[in-house]
Amino acid sequence: MRVLSKAILAGTVLAMAMGAAQAVDPDDAIDYRKGVFQVFVWNMGPMGAMASGDRPFDRDVLAMHAEQLNRVADMPWQGYVDGSDLGNTGALPAVWTNRARFDQLAEEFQQATANLMTAVESGAGERELRGAVGAVGRSCRTCHDDFRQ
Amino acid sequence: MRVLSKAILAGTVLAMAMGAAQAVDPDDAIDYRKGVFQVFVWNMGPMGAMASGDRPFDRDVLAMHAEQLNRVADMPWQGYVDGSDLGNTGALPAVWTNRARFDQLAEEFQQATANLMTAVESGAGERELRGAVGAVGRSCRTCHDDFRQ
Repeated sequence: MRVLSKAILAGTVLAMAMGAAQAVDPDDAIDYRKGVFQVFVWNMGPMGAMASGDRPFDRDVLAMHAEQLNRVADMPWQGYVDGSDLGNTGALPAVWTNRARFDQLAEEFQQATANLMTAVESGAGERELRGAVGAVGRSCRTCHDDFRQ
Repeated sequence: MRVLSKAILAGTVLAMAMGAAQAVDPDDAIDYRKGVFQVFVWNMGPMGAMASGDRPFDRDVLAMHAEQLNRVADMPWQGYVDGSDLGNTGALPAVWTNRARFDQLAEEFQQATANLMTAVESGAGERELRGAVGAVGRSCRTCHDDFRQ
């Protein structure tokens, strides 16, 4: 038996709550999740540039973006509602046909942003912070490889 | 003398931090703030429909959206960087020519979402919750009237 993770259960509860109350327009859900990903990009861009050495390391700026990214890390996944595989989206059908794996990667992403926050809050040095940002970036790419066009 | 609010000061510090480290591409800033507003719409839509009676009241769904909206209520404003008055945006020049008023309305919006969260967490009844959602909606409209095309 698979043990359902807290995140997957939370997602299920959310989906039930939303489905029970009112159907969500798939196009609205697509716009929403794309919006959250814009927030990801806004925050990940400067941190990724610091991690790769394309931009000078700045602890305060990194800390600000790490906090903001971690704050919204749980948000996009509720936008992958039924029917939103069609429309103006780069999401692959695998999101819906291999949902357990998708949910797992979403959960790992949230763990990676939480780890980055822990590093920031514990006063970790530049090397460790760049490493934690790199782990977030790899988490992004892992999911994009399998679930995004 | 005007007493600068905490929020305005925070915004100033943020702008300094971002400006000092690296210039932000205005188009990226526009995409970012539009993204946050999509998150606003996703959460405000169902709550607004409940407040106006277009959708059955559901405390759990309202609570979820109130929490999420409040969590990102401080985010869009950092996207109104210098130069982002031009480009694919509906923001009026007044954002930059009357920034003190814009910042004030942004702060009042955050207070409205915080008030809604307080109502949710205190177990307020349907009437009070619908009222608190209505106050958030009025805050949106007040700012849109003066600062959005």
